[in-house]
Amino acid sequence: MEELCIVKVGGNILDDSRKMKIFLQDLCGIRKNMVLVHGGGKWATALAEKLGISTQMVDGRRITNAEMLKVTTMVYAGWINKNIVATLNAKNKKALGMCGADLSILISKKRKKGKVDYGFVGDVILQKTGRKILSELIDQGIFPVIAPITTTEKGQLLNTNADTIAAVLATALSNKYKTRLIYCFEKKGVINGEKVISKINPKIYSELLKNRMVNGGMIPKLENAFQALDSGVKEVIIGDATQIKKLIRSHGGSSITK
Amino acid sequence: MEELCIVKVGGNILDDSRKMKIFLQDLCGIRKNMVLVHGGGKWATALAEKLGISTQMVDGRRITNAEMLKVTTMVYAGWINKNIVATLNAKNKKALGMCGADLSILISKKRKKGKVDYGFVGDVILQKTGRKILSELIDQGIFPVIAPITTTEKGQLLNTNADTIAAVLATALSNKYKTRLIYCFEKKGVINGEKVISKINPKIYSELLKNRMVNGGMIPKLENAFQALDSGVKEVIIGDATQIKKLIRSHGGSSITK
Repeated sequence: MEELCIVKVGGNILDDSRKMKIFLQDLCGIRKNMVLVHGGGKWATALAEKLGISTQMVDGRRITNAEMLKVTTMVYAGWINKNIVATLNAKNKKALGMCGADLSILISKKRKKGKVDYGFVGDVILQKTGRKILSELIDQGIFPVIAPITTTEKGQLLNTNADTIAAVLATALSNKYKTRLIYCFEKKGVINGEKVISKINPKIYSELLKNRMVNGGMIPKLENAFQALDSGVKEVIIGDATQIKKLIRSHGGSSITK
Repeated sequence: MEELCIVKVGGNILDDSRKMKIFLQDLCGIRKNMVLVHGGGKWATALAEKLGISTQMVDGRRITNAEMLKVTTMVYAGWINKNIVATLNAKNKKALGMCGADLSILISKKRKKGKVDYGFVGDVILQKTGRKILSELIDQGIFPVIAPITTTEKGQLLNTNADTIAAVLATALSNKYKTRLIYCFEKKGVINGEKVISKINPKIYSELLKNRMVNGGMIPKLENAFQALDSGVKEVIIGDATQIKKLIRSHGGSSITK
């Protein structure tokens, strides 16, 4: 089985053009099958503010009204996605920017109203992931770069958590490849005080949760990680985007295992 | 040689959700190899206005400063492109949204300052068109949907005229396919008074120009058409987007010939 790395980049890295440059340059030097998933939260928030649209977050997830869906689609699938692709291709990659609607690779369901109405937010349907078309693209040497916008079967675009997309892709493609999931951002990994926790298993995670040592965006990231490991993904790594070359060799960062 | 239709949709159609729905629905019923190129001028202008960015047009072409490049990339490659793709795929097409940066299909040069400084505007380099990768995608049954943003070889995104992109694609792919170029928008064709001019050749065109019966966006459209015909494209048709099923069968609209 060939290896496939699903790399998710997010957090402040996307706002830091110097670090982003290092990350993309390093990525170009890696000769492995890869899929890149990116977020882009702060750019969308900044544009929304300029347009007078207020942003509401619950547990690190954005409430998306119709106006905010437009802003996130424009920022994620437009500006950020195409700039990443153009930068990679200038260095002779064969990058293809996509969102979930493209070739129907990520079909989602609008999240039902519960305690919170998340608005135009989608939960990806794992079984409907376009694993066949994605593996055909990957086997052609194409490097998919995926923005966190998905679609319902009826063609309604939906804002979707990028960490979850990365986990779903790693899971869906694990029948064809030995998939590894690498979450990278501005921190060195999952941090305890000033130290990186190099190994996390379910027992350590429940202790971290109990002692409130993880919160915000880290909780869904770790939950996605464990779910992915339970579903066929070989390894999950969380670490610093500017260290991607090391992370991809399983050096540094936090390694999540069952 | 198989046939390939390069369909360009632009003008007010993109602002008219009812007409756009008809157009996309009709497109889904057409069983031919196709590439769709779309514009999206007015949405970008509206967003720019909301953001306090002024829009300047010269001969139907937009002056693009850094802020406007961001707006056009977001609107064209983000919002419009992904909505078209999601709508087509909900009807079982295999649509893939792209801009010129994706898989480096459209490489351009920043236009040099002349009498007018167009800013971040690109002129596509015909020889560098990604004809191989595009024909591979088309032969896989994929329907490329292309937003008018291109990139320099160094990865600088550039705003690019969608009519020109359609003509360049039709030309570049004419060595592999019998290409037909169909410009469709809100009008019935090239109009003289209230009548559609059903046939236009270079002689008729020069008369129309002399009598100032064509102007604005129509001039580059016709110039692109003649250049495409000179370079291997079999047929160019200009007509009403809501009549796409007829146009594709060479019924209605204005037919441009050498």
